[in-house]
Amino acid sequence: MSFDEIIDRRGTHCAKWDKMEPIYGVPADTGIAMWVADMDFRPPQVVQTALQDMLDHGVYGYFGDDSKYLGAIQWWMEHRHGWKLAPEWIFTTHGLVNGTAMCVDAFTKAGDGVVLFTPVYHAFARVISAAGRQVVECEMAIEGGQYTLDFDAYDAQMTGNETMLVFCSPHNPGGRVWSRSELEQVAAFAKRHDLVLVSDEIHHDLVMPGHTHTPMALIDGVADRLVMMTATTKTFNIAGSHSGNVIIPDPKLRETFAARIAAMGLSPNSFGLFMATAAYSPEGAAWVDDLVSYLDGNRQIFDAAIKDIPGLQSMSLQSTYLAWVDFSGTGMDRSEFTQRVENSAGIAANHGPTFGKGGESFLRFNIATPRARVEEACNRLREAFKDLQ
Amino acid sequence: MSFDEIIDRRGTHCAKWDKMEPIYGVPADTGIAMWVADMDFRPPQVVQTALQDMLDHGVYGYFGDDSKYLGAIQWWMEHRHGWKLAPEWIFTTHGLVNGTAMCVDAFTKAGDGVVLFTPVYHAFARVISAAGRQVVECEMAIEGGQYTLDFDAYDAQMTGNETMLVFCSPHNPGGRVWSRSELEQVAAFAKRHDLVLVSDEIHHDLVMPGHTHTPMALIDGVADRLVMMTATTKTFNIAGSHSGNVIIPDPKLRETFAARIAAMGLSPNSFGLFMATAAYSPEGAAWVDDLVSYLDGNRQIFDAAIKDIPGLQSMSLQSTYLAWVDFSGTGMDRSEFTQRVENSAGIAANHGPTFGKGGESFLRFNIATPRARVEEACNRLREAFKDLQ
Repeated sequence: MSFDEIIDRRGTHCAKWDKMEPIYGVPADTGIAMWVADMDFRPPQVVQTALQDMLDHGVYGYFGDDSKYLGAIQWWMEHRHGWKLAPEWIFTTHGLVNGTAMCVDAFTKAGDGVVLFTPVYHAFARVISAAGRQVVECEMAIEGGQYTLDFDAYDAQMTGNETMLVFCSPHNPGGRVWSRSELEQVAAFAKRHDLVLVSDEIHHDLVMPGHTHTPMALIDGVADRLVMMTATTKTFNIAGSHSGNVIIPDPKLRETFAARIAAMGLSPNSFGLFMATAAYSPEGAAWVDDLVSYLDGNRQIFDAAIKDIPGLQSMSLQSTYLAWVDFSGTGMDRSEFTQRVENSAGIAANHGPTFGKGGESFLRFNIATPRARVEEACNRLREAFKDLQ
Repeated sequence: MSFDEIIDRRGTHCAKWDKMEPIYGVPADTGIAMWVADMDFRPPQVVQTALQDMLDHGVYGYFGDDSKYLGAIQWWMEHRHGWKLAPEWIFTTHGLVNGTAMCVDAFTKAGDGVVLFTPVYHAFARVISAAGRQVVECEMAIEGGQYTLDFDAYDAQMTGNETMLVFCSPHNPGGRVWSRSELEQVAAFAKRHDLVLVSDEIHHDLVMPGHTHTPMALIDGVADRLVMMTATTKTFNIAGSHSGNVIIPDPKLRETFAARIAAMGLSPNSFGLFMATAAYSPEGAAWVDDLVSYLDGNRQIFDAAIKDIPGLQSMSLQSTYLAWVDFSGTGMDRSEFTQRVENSAGIAANHGPTFGKGGESFLRFNIATPRARVEEACNRLREAFKDLQ
């Protein structure tokens, strides 16, 4: 397959392309959708074949034996991430928004504080608030053009009411791949304030050349408070299957989580199970390697274009396909730079403030689309801000 | 398509066929799986085509505009069940076990009593107990070979701690299609004891000739306490898609439920949405008519065979494909008749006690399988109990 192939997703009930006009006012016929975090690519052939096999068999009843599925997860985590895990640690949730919500539900109570390092993936705050917990925003600093964590500030911010930290690793947005030393500090922070540490590692496979992701599970002394979250959906672009893994090494935390899963009557859909089993394979791995190379190329083109526009600053992505662009250097207020991107350039990008404190002057651009479209977006942005030249 | 086609489901991660041997000890190679409530048939071509279209497009990202999906549900309920509903009443859960659990979570609190008319679908009690609520078993009576409801007895049983009734209509097991008068009495009972009335109508499309299902939503005076549950999964045999609808006419109940859906971070998978949209169509309806005829044929063959075995009594199904057979007339204890069915006949059937009070002397046989297999099961049962002739 070629990542260059333009696949028209309009009219397919696709959130990214079909809700662009109603939400952003960016015209469906000429606009470029760079918001929702899915890719405009097909998954690897091994996943398509698994789905075709399901279709050829044609009976979609209740799924039984999940040993191959669990084995595929184990294989992937060990071979791609150096993390050995036991199958009984694995829960399958309906994607990781549901996974996060289940963690909040299982491990905190109403009124508790849940810590986020912001700006961060907007759905975290949404489910925390919806569950009647307090979102505690610990704003990240920017050093050398990258997000960093300021634990002295966060220590001072804690009130004792906090019981959980939802950590995003690699980070969305901004694309930080955290160093082992930073992960150790995050673990120490969680321990210091007695927080359950939920590590959302959904982007762990999409790491740019020159960077290495370390699973939080490999950090010493954190296992008794750790919940790992991973998924095939981001890596292989199968978000529609709504399937994610909540992986809990600690038996007590596991027991608590299992009780909530049972009380919620949750069990996974078979499409997600079959597709994940196929994806976590050598064929899937080879495809991911090609994908990351392609995304790295897109990233370089996009960043170069942004760099050429005075006042715009793109955070150099160490991971993810979500370019995080700061417009503060233009001196424009938020409505003006947003209007230029949406109305002049015809591009739908996520608004920074939805990611929490620190996101005010940013827009997030999804570059997981054929290169020609990234280039077209670059041209349009240059044109929309050409008076700054 | 022909319902007579034997499709081998063994080795496909199918719960019904692949977990038969580990759970019941019925050999995978020669046994007949008549337990898990899915069918050994493919769904209608219109559903297969929808899935093939997804595969041909090949990008499985986040699902957006659900207006066609909601419209298909409206169309089906009005045209097949005479029930007009508004799209904003509809929530999509991950199947109706999750739907039931979400109702328990949203509308009751820990320690509350949740009423069931038993014997009834075993997952209800499972999620009620897992949520820390009390299962209140109101045992049904049998009159004229059919289950009936004894409200005088149930009134006497209520303690004031009960806050919800989960009602199964048509009833599983036993296959009762409740009359309008009975439904009115159920609604009055719920009102009398101030219970939220959850009406699980998942079998509403599988109604035998001569019987008519009435949706609880058509009963006067119940709308302010009513939650309707329906799904495509049972009707069209797509349980693997884990998709169901919780439909709530009352704005206050709806607001409460919506808040819990948001807090749980639940949104539906796109496979379920595409398949349901295709299924709830004229083509889907024609297929269901053919299916019901076929199931009615299977039912008559199975019931006739059971009738020929002295001491066995099959409840004449007014709905569902789940034959409910009473072995009490044999004078055998439960282990003996179960052993004969499993070991001698090589048939896996659900054990009656899992359905609650009143199920002790029963086994539940799933007859939604090609007719040749039903006939083979009949022969094996006759043979296993031939000493009774």
